[in-house]
Amino acid sequence: METLEKKYPLLDNINSPADLKKLDVEQLPQLCDELRSFIINSLATNPGHLGSSLGAIDIIVAVHYVIDSPKDKFLFDVGHQAYAHKILTGRRDAFKTNRQHGGLSGFPTPEESEYDAFIAGHASNSISAGLGLSVAQRNKPKEERSRVVSLIGDGAMSGGLAFEGLNNAASTDNDLIIVLNDNHMAIDPAKGGMSQYLLDITTSKTYNSLRYKLYKLLRKIGIVDEKSKNKIQRATNRIKSILSRQQSNIFESLSIRYFGPVDGHDVKTLVRIFNEIKDYKGPRVVHCVTTKGKGYEPAEKSATIWHAPGKFDPQTGERIKEDCSAPLAPKYQDVFGETLLQLARKNDKIVGVTPAMPSGSSLSIMMKEMPKRCFDVGIAEGHAVTFSAGMAKGGLQPFCVIYSTFLQRAYDNVIHDVAILNLPVVICVDRAGIVGHDGTTHHGYFDMTSLRSIPNITIAAPMNEIELRNMMYTAQLPGKGTFVIRYPRGRGEFCNDDWKTAPMEELPIGKGVKIKDGEDIAVLSIGTAGNDAAKAIAEVEKNTGKQIAHYDMRFLKPIDEELLKEVAARYSKIVTVEEGMRDGGLGSAVIEKLADWKISKDVVRIGYPDKFIGQGEISELKADTRTDFRAIADEITKLIESL
Amino acid sequence: METLEKKYPLLDNINSPADLKKLDVEQLPQLCDELRSFIINSLATNPGHLGSSLGAIDIIVAVHYVIDSPKDKFLFDVGHQAYAHKILTGRRDAFKTNRQHGGLSGFPTPEESEYDAFIAGHASNSISAGLGLSVAQRNKPKEERSRVVSLIGDGAMSGGLAFEGLNNAASTDNDLIIVLNDNHMAIDPAKGGMSQYLLDITTSKTYNSLRYKLYKLLRKIGIVDEKSKNKIQRATNRIKSILSRQQSNIFESLSIRYFGPVDGHDVKTLVRIFNEIKDYKGPRVVHCVTTKGKGYEPAEKSATIWHAPGKFDPQTGERIKEDCSAPLAPKYQDVFGETLLQLARKNDKIVGVTPAMPSGSSLSIMMKEMPKRCFDVGIAEGHAVTFSAGMAKGGLQPFCVIYSTFLQRAYDNVIHDVAILNLPVVICVDRAGIVGHDGTTHHGYFDMTSLRSIPNITIAAPMNEIELRNMMYTAQLPGKGTFVIRYPRGRGEFCNDDWKTAPMEELPIGKGVKIKDGEDIAVLSIGTAGNDAAKAIAEVEKNTGKQIAHYDMRFLKPIDEELLKEVAARYSKIVTVEEGMRDGGLGSAVIEKLADWKISKDVVRIGYPDKFIGQGEISELKADTRTDFRAIADEITKLIESL
Repeated sequence: METLEKKYPLLDNINSPADLKKLDVEQLPQLCDELRSFIINSLATNPGHLGSSLGAIDIIVAVHYVIDSPKDKFLFDVGHQAYAHKILTGRRDAFKTNRQHGGLSGFPTPEESEYDAFIAGHASNSISAGLGLSVAQRNKPKEERSRVVSLIGDGAMSGGLAFEGLNNAASTDNDLIIVLNDNHMAIDPAKGGMSQYLLDITTSKTYNSLRYKLYKLLRKIGIVDEKSKNKIQRATNRIKSILSRQQSNIFESLSIRYFGPVDGHDVKTLVRIFNEIKDYKGPRVVHCVTTKGKGYEPAEKSATIWHAPGKFDPQTGERIKEDCSAPLAPKYQDVFGETLLQLARKNDKIVGVTPAMPSGSSLSIMMKEMPKRCFDVGIAEGHAVTFSAGMAKGGLQPFCVIYSTFLQRAYDNVIHDVAILNLPVVICVDRAGIVGHDGTTHHGYFDMTSLRSIPNITIAAPMNEIELRNMMYTAQLPGKGTFVIRYPRGRGEFCNDDWKTAPMEELPIGKGVKIKDGEDIAVLSIGTAGNDAAKAIAEVEKNTGKQIAHYDMRFLKPIDEELLKEVAARYSKIVTVEEGMRDGGLGSAVIEKLADWKISKDVVRIGYPDKFIGQGEISELKADTRTDFRAIADEITKLIESL
Repeated sequence: METLEKKYPLLDNINSPADLKKLDVEQLPQLCDELRSFIINSLATNPGHLGSSLGAIDIIVAVHYVIDSPKDKFLFDVGHQAYAHKILTGRRDAFKTNRQHGGLSGFPTPEESEYDAFIAGHASNSISAGLGLSVAQRNKPKEERSRVVSLIGDGAMSGGLAFEGLNNAASTDNDLIIVLNDNHMAIDPAKGGMSQYLLDITTSKTYNSLRYKLYKLLRKIGIVDEKSKNKIQRATNRIKSILSRQQSNIFESLSIRYFGPVDGHDVKTLVRIFNEIKDYKGPRVVHCVTTKGKGYEPAEKSATIWHAPGKFDPQTGERIKEDCSAPLAPKYQDVFGETLLQLARKNDKIVGVTPAMPSGSSLSIMMKEMPKRCFDVGIAEGHAVTFSAGMAKGGLQPFCVIYSTFLQRAYDNVIHDVAILNLPVVICVDRAGIVGHDGTTHHGYFDMTSLRSIPNITIAAPMNEIELRNMMYTAQLPGKGTFVIRYPRGRGEFCNDDWKTAPMEELPIGKGVKIKDGEDIAVLSIGTAGNDAAKAIAEVEKNTGKQIAHYDMRFLKPIDEELLKEVAARYSKIVTVEEGMRDGGLGSAVIEKLADWKISKDVVRIGYPDKFIGQGEISELKADTRTDFRAIADEITKLIESL
């Protein structure tokens, strides 16, 4: 394949957007090819987000060719499409460390580069943040003002935040440029000759300068208030609509000027259009139609698989599988998916809901067999929860699966729409705890601490596959109310398929279990942290000959008071272990109870420290945060020494 | 005024929607008049939300006349417009207890009545919840299926959740009826002859049955997948658009069938339209144009004042002011508003942001003098925070003021868009703690517990007006990063205007202050709870002769470790007092530190218990939750007895 050359004659000389601007516009297609090749070859050995990065290359090149970054601000939305941007802005050689511990972040972040205008991990924020940046230019002298470009995917457009931003952009004095990277055609695609015609009309300087002149004229004679401004907007939109007979779209219905659709892989046309509209006044949208995985045949064919394909052979497109010499335990996601399907076969009230993550969460397993009972609502976490609440009120039993980091977007929905009515929604919190290479913006830090203070909610976390199945079984039994189950990214504990047929049993709500007895010291763990705790205990026992007790709490809320009283009666020192923020979580719940009972004990709490965590292997980050088995063993050893 | 008769010949006989249906449609205008009169007379002595309730009467009567509630589900959005609904559904006589302690809730809630299909305190949830309820009907036998009607105001339409719901409604198999109560004309109003013409076209059975027949025909011959369904929708919309030449609106751009606009006070026409469309398939919107305060002249004239006017004389429209025999302390809101203006005069980087609450938050004070530096972004809390983050990144100093209960909607925005970058956004959390008559959905329970675990954030709470001013002054100084200041609904401590000119000083971050010394027992308070604590201490000291120490922590985060060490060294018993959830807040922060330091103390934590709180006077609810000065005094007294 031509694109897979490992020679980059143009790219090798680009160390900043200033270098890019030295190229002739006719050279840009070759530069895009080189970027494709560079990204494919890099990701073949250092995995990352391939499909969306390939799709956005031409747009990124065109934007940087036209604007003056870093003075001008270029914002991304779900920033894993930003690889070309990173490579063009002085990070070409560092790109080999992408997503690695201590390396480049997989997402744009101002802490890494002045070219990264804003943080872009969670979807749908680029319009709101871009609007803020744009408004901040208003009172600067003209020569100091930055242009602001927000690039947003059509998927992210379903997020309510993007709509809130658009809605406000229309009514606020600003010059925001929104570039819609549309690879799903979720927004009215209108292709072919008509669309080219439209494009020419809408971006022609004549048409727009006419509109702007009219506006300025009216402002001069003093009749431009908000209302008449909207009227002019509507009038000129109507002219265009009559010209084109095109159904107006959501942007125009919000009175935001719309240009497109344009071929998002035609870099020369993109440059022409961005040049034309870059200094127009007011908010405007350029709608670019792109193909995910563009330029790499396997990725174009199977967008989902090649979203983040892992390692692969760039020449053959063969994906390199994990070493399977040893049997692997199942992913928690697959245990969730398969178990939900099994439960749904028996309980016809069960429905599944995911905000845009059917594959990632493995809800796809149930979806395949029961498509009518599963709902992918798009990137819309708040809606996913409130929609589930509505279904629960209507008599169904929803399982709503959301990544911990994205559940932050539905915090109010959990409180207001679910918990107050104690509706039987099962919220499965996926990727709870450290998630690895996605890094700072994506770790599941806060679900336990933020949900714990909400009344009516049961919060459980399994230590292994079997507990996850039992918790899911228990949660869907009648009368259990609002039920949260959190589990991590990654694999379980048992390297065979027995879990698939293991009978499920009801767990008593708010009851933990004793895993082993001990002397003096008891370890209380919740969730999969219990496995690190067990490993630590085994090591310490081997080294010291001392027996350490271990309890799996299973439930953060309600906390097992009986168990705590037993522990308090039998042990003088307690260690709590959890995969979440240290302040406010399980450890705090334990010492709260002890304080209420006026029981004095040494309690060592192990959890994440009060800072954001970077990216890397999960094991590396657990070590960094002192939450790995090594840290647990050290803490227990210190306690033994203090006895 | 005719509407102010205290005779209700029709209304007196209506104890359920079934009674309403016995009326002839010609009698409905009179019933609407009686409802207006009843609501005005009730609210004159028992205050509540007047304007929006008057505006929604005709729609509510028409909906209940057409559907079969409670079998059919009628959902509200920002439910304070639902008074007519409450009165028509068996709660006419109980309505005199509206918003009172132990009385009717000011909002619909299923816990109160089977006619309240869903909870409706926070805006923008009715489409998502209604969609869930509608989907839950799918597999029921036809005769058991409920119709679902979601009533939503145009204000609530700016909330991202409403958009997420709409977007999903368009792609999900459901028969949801959305009634848009549009009193601001935020959505393209199109009035006059054309709109009547449009209305007739769009609601005519011919047009719609044509469309539906086409759809059924194509389904029969098997070519209706999602894609072609959308094509048909677009094609028929285009027919309508050509017929009417009306600019298509946001609903149609999402492929949701749109009817209107219709006069939302013409109850007979509303009945006709709802009857026509009630059994159409698929999601559909009826756009009703209404006037806030309709039928009561003073309320029609000044919508903002009469939104919730307090007590008034129904005949003269004169509002009855609070008893001013004693001078009143200022509202914290006014201290915020006036102080922000003073700061903004000196610091030209300061801008103000509110999601739809300029009057409620008193940002209006700054808005009046500096309209260009203030942004009312509509009901869009997530955007308010991310937009503020963008402005901060652009060099401005935003103060974003949000009610505690609504900040729950921006939890992820605070984490992802503000805290990770430690951007200098000052988040002023208004109405923190118990808010009184708005009740369960509106108390500010969770801000301290949910924000405390986020890294990089400073969280402060003033004990009085002067501290609020000093905290605001401190927060806008350079280098302070993300800064949260929480304060309650209600009045401060000082009954004069000296606060307005009191010089402001920088407070050291994370430092509390000693208010008084004592023996054995120290009370640690945060925020205005400190005033209850002071009162309790004074009483106990008077009764026992014992001296009690009191510290105002000022900062929840970072917590004052030096102060805690001093307290631990000098006192054997500690009482913590806060206006927030007891588990996870200040008390927990204190015992976490003591546990880390292996210091053993009796700590009594006073805060809200682990349940949702109802409505009533703030004093009543503080007593219920054992967080008033009485409860604090009791706890201190018990501790003295245990010494």
